[in-house]
Amino acid sequence: MTQTFDIAVIGATGTVGETIVQLLEEREFPVGQLHLLASIESAGSSVPYKGKNVRVREVADFDFKRARLAFFAGGDAATRSFAGRAHEAGCAVIDLSGSLPLNESPRVVPEINADLLAGLPKPVRVSCPSPAATAVALVLKPLLALLQLNRVNVTACLAVSTQGRAAIAELARQTTELLNVRPLEPQFFDRQVAFNLLAQVGKVDEQGHALLEKRLVSELRQLLELPDLKVSATCVQAPVFFGDSFSVALDTSASVDLAAVNAALEAADGLEWVESDDYPTAVGDAVGQDEVYIGRVRGGIDDPTAVNLWIASDNVRKGAALNAVQLAELLIKHYL
Amino acid sequence: MTQTFDIAVIGATGTVGETIVQLLEEREFPVGQLHLLASIESAGSSVPYKGKNVRVREVADFDFKRARLAFFAGGDAATRSFAGRAHEAGCAVIDLSGSLPLNESPRVVPEINADLLAGLPKPVRVSCPSPAATAVALVLKPLLALLQLNRVNVTACLAVSTQGRAAIAELARQTTELLNVRPLEPQFFDRQVAFNLLAQVGKVDEQGHALLEKRLVSELRQLLELPDLKVSATCVQAPVFFGDSFSVALDTSASVDLAAVNAALEAADGLEWVESDDYPTAVGDAVGQDEVYIGRVRGGIDDPTAVNLWIASDNVRKGAALNAVQLAELLIKHYL
Repeated sequence: MTQTFDIAVIGATGTVGETIVQLLEEREFPVGQLHLLASIESAGSSVPYKGKNVRVREVADFDFKRARLAFFAGGDAATRSFAGRAHEAGCAVIDLSGSLPLNESPRVVPEINADLLAGLPKPVRVSCPSPAATAVALVLKPLLALLQLNRVNVTACLAVSTQGRAAIAELARQTTELLNVRPLEPQFFDRQVAFNLLAQVGKVDEQGHALLEKRLVSELRQLLELPDLKVSATCVQAPVFFGDSFSVALDTSASVDLAAVNAALEAADGLEWVESDDYPTAVGDAVGQDEVYIGRVRGGIDDPTAVNLWIASDNVRKGAALNAVQLAELLIKHYL
Repeated sequence: MTQTFDIAVIGATGTVGETIVQLLEEREFPVGQLHLLASIESAGSSVPYKGKNVRVREVADFDFKRARLAFFAGGDAATRSFAGRAHEAGCAVIDLSGSLPLNESPRVVPEINADLLAGLPKPVRVSCPSPAATAVALVLKPLLALLQLNRVNVTACLAVSTQGRAAIAELARQTTELLNVRPLEPQFFDRQVAFNLLAQVGKVDEQGHALLEKRLVSELRQLLELPDLKVSATCVQAPVFFGDSFSVALDTSASVDLAAVNAALEAADGLEWVESDDYPTAVGDAVGQDEVYIGRVRGGIDDPTAVNLWIASDNVRKGAALNAVQLAELLIKHYL
């Protein structure tokens, strides 16, 4: 008989939490008991799993001794309140909120740095990087042997689903009102996001950097093992429901062999490379797929040391839920 | 009695052409005869000017000796076919298509390089830069005395109006079909642009660069008088009707004094500077305004030699029609 593992999913009613449950089923993860958990507001609802509706219970009441592994997909507050309790109860923690410090819970993307899992103290704590860091790191990793990077410039155009269900509903509502020429009353966002781009996602610090921008820089450095990498990061809110897009410009210190760059990207794990006579888009290609899409690979204009790239990724799937489930698969095989 | 000037507007039925006519009225330009011209498909329609509907005639039939100054807002083909004829007839040409070479028809933005007009041979030929080059150059110009630029990285998220009325109608149609859960049948664009971002605007050359990207680089170099400036340019099609947004990362060779950068931007002509506790958007701020909006001015993360900026601009107005009318105002005062 195959060994099974009792699993907890915190934030089970959110877009990422629901996708984790769906992927556990799709990928035939050996789930024993499945404990779906959420804050008191969402407790009582249910989430489909293997043809049944599994009831969601309040996380505050849960005894983490009853789970071998917990996915924290419920945002910063839930992770800060309950990840420590899970850890003390001996439960492995896979965090998706980014609120655990890098030195306590390293960021791991299986295709990039799965080897880190071997060195983790038990009970294991490990984090998924932000969707942006995951996508960009998957593209940069196979290029590190080819390029001497001076600076990575990233403009990330993020889907509203980055900010959860309320943001998705707001984009739909704003769009409908504008198309019907009704007055716009912003609710979730503080201004018009439909048919517009917002220069900033969330609040910024005194230096003007948003949390997601700081995460992108620190997580890229850790994933690529380049602690001094210069990264210029701008995270923009696009009027897109699902799927992130990234415009990336690499500044390197020598002439770039673009054929070698293309070959390395085409061969890399976790990437779908698109030829230069076409290009990928978030919605048309990446959403619903396990791979991160890479296209528009080109040099600079009169500038042989530059490389320009376009990346499209499913922010909920490979950007979060899929990476988390892949980490869980590695943990139960080797490290739990 | 005030002197008046007979004016021709080619492409008078397009978004930019109509805005030129509207601005001639708003700014009380001393128009004598107003000749509205278009291709045979659009001839016969009319455009409002000073409370009357002015009939649009076919450009092929027009005798350019009848105009002192012609705005070419009808796209590449119209400019290539008729700008030469206008020039030979002694008519000053203000081109907005970008199809006249830089050495024949220099790009001028009044706030940046109006002095170039004095040296032009007559009849004058002068071009508006692309909306992207205009917006980015207006922001970079006041910084040149403060920064030693190594490279300018631009991701331009362009409105569909960049591609004319058919593109505007297509975004509205696609959005409506998706909201009504009807199957999407792309027409003007070759794929879904609603709730999506397209990595590329128009076709690309063998090196993978789109025409608008090449214009951005060459026009920035000419406007800023920095012929060797390294510019990394990516032009993206955003699901936005009007208003371009630009994420710009500057790589410089010394520590940047951000207070001085902010002060220079706040003081510059043609710019509206937004403090770091807020940010401008294309639709919410720039559209309908004469100024280019600049915000999110910040350094790099752990990187004192970087500057990050966000620019929002009305692509039809300051990006095209307003700049053209401002050029005409200077020409009739000093150089016609």
